[in-house]
Parts: sequence; structure tokens; C-alpha cells
Amino acid sequence: MSTTAPSRPRIALTLGDPSGIGPELVAKLVADPANRGRVDFLVLASEAELAAAAAEAGVEVPVAAAASADAVAALGSDLADAPVDRGRVSVEGGRRAMADLESALGVYERGEADAIVFAPLNKQALAMAGMKHEDELRWFADRLGWTGTTSELNLVPGLTTSRVTSHIPLSEVASCISAHKVAEATRLLHTVVAAQGVERPQLAVCALNPHGGEGGKFGREEIDHIAPAVALLRSEGIDAHGPFPCDTLFIRAREGDFDGVVTMYHDQGQIAMKLMGFDQGVTVQGGLPVPIATPAHGTAHGIVGQGVASTGPTQRALDVAVELVERA
Amino acid sequence: MSTTAPSRPRIALTLGDPSGIGPELVAKLVADPANRGRVDFLVLASEAELAAAAAEAGVEVPVAAAASADAVAALGSDLADAPVDRGRVSVEGGRRAMADLESALGVYERGEADAIVFAPLNKQALAMAGMKHEDELRWFADRLGWTGTTSELNLVPGLTTSRVTSHIPLSEVASCISAHKVAEATRLLHTVVAAQGVERPQLAVCALNPHGGEGGKFGREEIDHIAPAVALLRSEGIDAHGPFPCDTLFIRAREGDFDGVVTMYHDQGQIAMKLMGFDQGVTVQGGLPVPIATPAHGTAHGIVGQGVASTGPTQRALDVAVELVERA
Repeated sequence: MSTTAPSRPRIALTLGDPSGIGPELVAKLVADPANRGRVDFLVLASEAELAAAAAEAGVEVPVAAAASADAVAALGSDLADAPVDRGRVSVEGGRRAMADLESALGVYERGEADAIVFAPLNKQALAMAGMKHEDELRWFADRLGWTGTTSELNLVPGLTTSRVTSHIPLSEVASCISAHKVAEATRLLHTVVAAQGVERPQLAVCALNPHGGEGGKFGREEIDHIAPAVALLRSEGIDAHGPFPCDTLFIRAREGDFDGVVTMYHDQGQIAMKLMGFDQGVTVQGGLPVPIATPAHGTAHGIVGQGVASTGPTQRALDVAVELVERA
Repeated sequence: MSTTAPSRPRIALTLGDPSGIGPELVAKLVADPANRGRVDFLVLASEAELAAAAAEAGVEVPVAAAASADAVAALGSDLADAPVDRGRVSVEGGRRAMADLESALGVYERGEADAIVFAPLNKQALAMAGMKHEDELRWFADRLGWTGTTSELNLVPGLTTSRVTSHIPLSEVASCISAHKVAEATRLLHTVVAAQGVERPQLAVCALNPHGGEGGKFGREEIDHIAPAVALLRSEGIDAHGPFPCDTLFIRAREGDFDGVVTMYHDQGQIAMKLMGFDQGVTVQGGLPVPIATPAHGTAHGIVGQGVASTGPTQRALDVAVELVERA
């Protein structure tokens, strides 16, 4: 068995909500020798669960006491082998998903993992299981006692977005825009785009108002907050551009003019990213001290147990987590 | 020469901002015998201007005193033959564009035209020329003394959007959402989609907040205003659906689940529509007593005078205007 060299990132991996395709995705991911060849997998599941997932996925998953290129470590779970109905939302699924995220953070905090990748969750199940936070990102930050700036980052091939605000009412968005917050969301984006190997990330910052406010005619946030943030960022050496009216900006971003876009509110980015194939993309819980990535799609209850789930987004989530560890 | 039968819609047609590709587009549109075969064209330009535009476009434009299948009527213009630099923004271009819109409304008001189609304008030139309104739609409404509900409608093949709010600061959007306004924007959309020949228009109404507010967690406009509007519309026999979170809704709309989408604010619709090819789409000045349509693209100063401008969007604008007249 090979030893764990510092150059092999150690990835804590959860099954997500086990009612969905998560176990199948995890089995397929860790069954790939190319993946095991570069990272140590620490899976929050029992050996029996991994064996069942491997059978469902139609792959072989070698398990050993310590992770290596030859085998994955099955760390177990506080709720290992507890029955969860497949293909439907349940409190049991939500409880298991939360317990494993909790355990994965523990593994990281004990210095045994460098990053976390989790398979798809189900928000409804998490709420049933007692998650009261605005989103998983807030939950992670709360659990870690982390008070620094965070932002969910969304990745499709060639484009990453960050958000100044996220899960809040649209009526509160404008009052939350400040030069400080715009600059923080842009710096986070810069870090994550650079970690993907982009030499000089070209980052565009969205305007808040229609037509970018037309010089103050339809709102002044561009003038008072966003443009000063862009100027500040440029003085720091970050290639930030804008603010740009967001409707035409995403066309330019799709054409490759920018590597990243800073959005002011949830749907500003999500309308565009979903039309650009974000269901096959990756979400990064940006700004936390630990790199955490997950495929952007859901539990896909409709195809559970068929062995047909595509690992593309999960593979990309792993790749991003590894890049974040290696370039940290 | 054929006579003007009531079944032939009479279209007042302007060159838009003549610094751009408008004259070329108009010449190409009216040169097509298939178009002249079904509508009477009343062009706000002199014979000399039409001849120059025809030469630029490489087409023949027959002109006569009265419009018919054989020829178009050149109504002249208050600023006919006044020099306007081509390929750049100018106050002269804006003045001409405004003067001709003014004249076109006069033609309509005198009962001599049934609809107006205008070639691309330039907002900056219009502002230089003194247009102080939020947008052309407000200008038209003001000029007509029209106080009813209006909404800019945007069309791409298979999908039309209307807006509850348009050119206002994002900070003011939430307070402008009411069941009444949502219902009005949906009824307008219904009219324009039905006019395109859709038998039972299936209309989706956007939520305002991320994830549709998640049951009031991130805003209550869905519960307090939008859902009641949808219920009211359904009781009137309109197939309205929603409110739906807007980021996933546009994927469904692109797949053909809906014929129209009611958006709550400018960028909610425009981010999606521009990614879906709206630069080749059509804008309808919805809610006015006179049907008014225009291609969605701009003056395209970069290709002026080359004869290469595509008439697709202008042709679709004409088609929509004709449908609105015929199904009124």
C-alpha cells in the first residue's frame, strides 16, 4: 500500500442525500483509477454501503483501512446502514446528508482531509431534518464559526460566477450592495478562477440596474458603489471590468471575453448560468477556510438505481476541489 | 393599380435613425413583392431617400402616389433630405427618428394607417434630440395621451415576454409589484401571443425572489401579489401558470413548455432573451391603441452602407404588426 504523500490531496467525500444518485456517483468517481492515482478518498460511508453503491453503479470499489492509489478509505457514518427510501424526499435522507457533512468537517478539522466534495443534497429533505440556514454555505460557515466573507460560486466550463447577495428578498438586494462587498465577492472569484489555472483572470462586474442605471437615471448603485469597487480592485492588480449591464454581459462572457462574472443577486447569475448548462456545472462554497465543491445538479430521484447517472459534474467538482487545494 | 381593400393592413414605416442600417432594411422590406402583396406601405421618407436606400440595399423600390401591391407611398418627412452622417451617433439622426415617429402617429390618428413599424433607433441620439422619457414606449403613450397599461413585449421565435416593471431602479421593483399590474401584463401578453396565431397561449409568470421566495422565506410578493394574480387570470380563462422561480423557468420556456413569460423586472427577461437570440428578435410597444413593432437590434453603425444587413428581425416585426392588426 502506498503512503499518503503531502502532494496527494485528501478528499473527504459524502454520499449526499442517499435517496438520490449520490451513492452511484461516488462509487463511479472513486472506482476510476485515474482519480485514485492523484487523491486519497475518505468516504463517509460504511464498507457495506460502498459495496452496494458499487454494485448499483456497475463498478469495482476497492476499500482499505487507509486511502491510497489502490483503495479508498470507508470512514463510516454516524447513520451508516440506516435505511433510507430511494427515489423520494425523506427526513431520513436529509438527516444522513447533514450528519455526513458534519463528519466531513470534523475530518477536515482534525487535519485528516484537505477538501470536501459532497454528492447532491435535497434542500427540502435538509429542511425536514432541521437545517434552518439560508443555504448550505451559511450552515458551513456557522458550523465552522467562520465570519469572513463567503459567496457561492457557480462554474460552467470557461465561466465562473460569484454573488454579492444570494438567498434574500429582491427588495433587500439594493441596500446590501456596497463597494466593500462587491470587492470581496470579486476577490473570491479571482481566487477560484486563478485556482482553475487561468493566468490573469479577466473578471466582469455586473451592474445592478437596467442598462447599468444609464448614468444614474435608473439607480445610482453603479456610480456610488460598484464602479469604486472596480477601481479599487484594479489598483490591487485584479483585472476587474465594468460595471456592465448584465443582459448583454452574459453574451460576451459566453463568447469568452471574461473568465468570471460578479453578480449582484441570485437570479442575475442563475438565469444566465442555467441557460448556459449549469445543471452540468459545479458549485463551490467560496470563502470558507476549507475548499468545498459539489455538482450543481440535484438528487435526480427519477433515475435512481439505474446505473445511468453521468459523473461529469461530480468529476468536475472533484477537479476544482483538487485545484483549490493544490494552488492554495 | 390595385385599390386599398380593408383587408390590406396599412403600415406606416419609418427609417428609424437614418445614420444606421434602417434605410437599407426598409428598402429591402418593401422591395419584396410578397410583402407589398399583403400590406400597403406608407414610408416616412422622400422619393429621393427611398431611391438612395434602394441603391444601398441593391433592390428596386417602386414608388407611387398611393400604396398598392405594385408600389409604396413615399409620404415624405418633416426632415426629408436633411443631411445626417452615416455610421455615427448624432443629434440630427435622433431628431429625424423622432420627427418620423411623430408623423407616423399622425398618419395613424388621421385613420390612414393601421399599424406602425419603425427601423432601429439610437437611444443616445434620441436623448441628444430631446427625448426625456424612460423609453420609447413612455414617449408613445405620452404623445397619444394614453393612460392605460403598457408593457414592452419582446419576441423570439416561439417565446414572447412582457414586463411588470421596466426602466426603473432595481431598488424600486418590489414595491411596484401588485396583483393588478401582474394581471395587466399577463393579459397584454395573452393578446400578443394569441395574435401570433397561438390557439390557447400557455403563459408562465415569473416569481420575483430567488427560488420563488421559498414559501415566504425570501420575500412575500409571490404569496401576496403574484399567486393571486395568476388565480384571477385563470378564473378569466387565461392559461396562466406560476409563479415559478425564474432561473429554471426560462429553460422550460426554451424547451417549448410555454408560449409566453411574464417578467417582474427588465433584466429578469432580458438576460434570458438575449442569451436566446433576442438580438434577432422583435419588440412590440404593447398596450397602446396602435400596434407598433420594431426589430430588437440597434442601428449597427459598423455595417452601414454595405448592403449586408439582414432583414430577418425587421420582417418579423412587420409580420407581428400585421397579425396584431388582423386579429384585433
